[in-house]
Amino acid sequence: MANVTTVPEVLTRARDLVVPAMRRSIDMLNPQLRSIAAYHLGWEDAKGESTGSDGGKGVRPALALLSAEAMGARGEYGLPGAVAIELVHNYSLIHDDVMDVDRERRHRPTVWAVFGIAQAIIVGDALAALAQQIVLDPRLLVADGQVLEGHQAALLLADATAKMIAGQSQDMEFEGRGHVSFDECLAMEAGKTGALLGCAAAIGAVLVNAPMTTVGALDRFGVELGLAFQAVDDLLGIWGDPKTTGKPSWSDLRQHKKSLPVTAALSSGESGVEELLELLAIEQLSERQIERCAELVERLGGRDATNELADTRLLLALDALDEAEILDDARRQFIEIAHFVVERQF
Amino acid sequence: MANVTTVPEVLTRARDLVVPAMRRSIDMLNPQLRSIAAYHLGWEDAKGESTGSDGGKGVRPALALLSAEAMGARGEYGLPGAVAIELVHNYSLIHDDVMDVDRERRHRPTVWAVFGIAQAIIVGDALAALAQQIVLDPRLLVADGQVLEGHQAALLLADATAKMIAGQSQDMEFEGRGHVSFDECLAMEAGKTGALLGCAAAIGAVLVNAPMTTVGALDRFGVELGLAFQAVDDLLGIWGDPKTTGKPSWSDLRQHKKSLPVTAALSSGESGVEELLELLAIEQLSERQIERCAELVERLGGRDATNELADTRLLLALDALDEAEILDDARRQFIEIAHFVVERQF
Repeated sequence: MANVTTVPEVLTRARDLVVPAMRRSIDMLNPQLRSIAAYHLGWEDAKGESTGSDGGKGVRPALALLSAEAMGARGEYGLPGAVAIELVHNYSLIHDDVMDVDRERRHRPTVWAVFGIAQAIIVGDALAALAQQIVLDPRLLVADGQVLEGHQAALLLADATAKMIAGQSQDMEFEGRGHVSFDECLAMEAGKTGALLGCAAAIGAVLVNAPMTTVGALDRFGVELGLAFQAVDDLLGIWGDPKTTGKPSWSDLRQHKKSLPVTAALSSGESGVEELLELLAIEQLSERQIERCAELVERLGGRDATNELADTRLLLALDALDEAEILDDARRQFIEIAHFVVERQF
Repeated sequence: MANVTTVPEVLTRARDLVVPAMRRSIDMLNPQLRSIAAYHLGWEDAKGESTGSDGGKGVRPALALLSAEAMGARGEYGLPGAVAIELVHNYSLIHDDVMDVDRERRHRPTVWAVFGIAQAIIVGDALAALAQQIVLDPRLLVADGQVLEGHQAALLLADATAKMIAGQSQDMEFEGRGHVSFDECLAMEAGKTGALLGCAAAIGAVLVNAPMTTVGALDRFGVELGLAFQAVDDLLGIWGDPKTTGKPSWSDLRQHKKSLPVTAALSSGESGVEELLELLAIEQLSERQIERCAELVERLGGRDATNELADTRLLLALDALDEAEILDDARRQFIEIAHFVVERQF
């Protein structure tokens, strides 16, 4: 597997197109909603002062632009898809932070922690509606956008959003019960994270009227990449460095998250599973108990299994990519992004 | 003005089509989300037992079906629009109840009061996504739905949803400040309530490819009707009988809602405005103070002005309807619905 340590050029290039388009989109909101969104995106502080930052690393929007280029079209034609997906992704983060009672994200207080739950709900709702408006009427962002297939793109996005929401709902249900199998967890994360990445990798192609077989292959590439990404994310959620993740140590264990490492450990059938189940049933875990959970998950093979899953799903993603009839240069960049996503430092 | 005391036949007829389609739609959700939605819609109790009820009076879906019939098409062709609007309307109710900390709706505990805030957020999100899926792919509900204009209908719905959200956001902002003018309040309610009713009155016509002028006229009819409806609703929110509204007496005053009667009173310029402003600035009003607010709003003309607004907006709605080129029989039914909406008992 190639070792990519630098940020792929395509991400930087995508950002140059996506950041101004995101700003134009957010400016369509009313002033109250706009300023909360600008806070969440890292553009402004809680007082509305500019931070000089333009937010996130933008894997999703880069995939969206690339999937238009992959069909020989201008990357700009993927822009309505890229922005819509960023909006949906950020709406889900804002709502998830309320639902998970997370007070911090990206080293900053979350929207609800600053502005309250009501504002977090309404700004999330606003971003979701804005995403649909933009993908349905690509002319809002692309001057000659009437040639773009907004209808099919909107359907792809709505389907992915529905799957993402169902995944989040399952995730919440998992927290409330004892045993969750590794397969159940995988299915949940295919929805929660995979669906939107699949949409990202295909939406640009849909906008420029790509054939269904290629759209399907790109979508599968993104879903598998999403699972690989999520495996890495779940590892970071337990063993990630708080300085890098911006979350407390063993964050997912504190929240009783039945993540991939935990469910892999629970499905191991080895001695220690009972102790782990008992610990996870305790409502308020002490620091010692949380540390013990992390030890048990590792000893029961949860960490190794999740590392392995990341590798397998990356290979499945690359297999799916092979089936897409796309330009070679785009294929190379898709592969670069895939490696970058899975090889995040922690 | 005709005095319509019975429920228009079109509402009953619409319900026969919409209720089964709503059930089929809600069944597309995963089991957790489905059962919470079924609770909210009044179909099931909190334990998942059937209540034998099929929910709401369904003015919005009736308008949607009628607007397809108005163009000479089958009412069924308006069904994806009718269901999508019901879903958006209910998603907004579920989220609004969290934001407004309302524990009761339609004589029952609200979703968040039963299932918690996290579940209320996610089920609302799920209904919003489902609405878009259904309008974008009308074949989900109508066998020969591929002839329908799902793209334009989805755009109309997304625009209306965005306006509704902006209206709710303004409404929340109003609660936090002292003076809100009558015009500001009217603009807010045009978004919060008018937009979705406008969409309802036009979406069936859009689905069957009606000309833009008629779509525009029907939309205006719905927006104006929405304002008339909201005027009545705001009167009920203060002076409505708790037995009928399912909410405590003077409910909107308890919440410091800057509703139409309150803002009309505040804009009256008469003596008493200062006292009302001072009362509304008190965070926790006593029962005596709430009663005094209601007295002041009435004495300052807020009740009369809102009654008058309901009449004016009804006339404007009927004017807009005159401009729509639609079948006479549908026009008669639109008028029936309009009177029914404004002449609710209280």
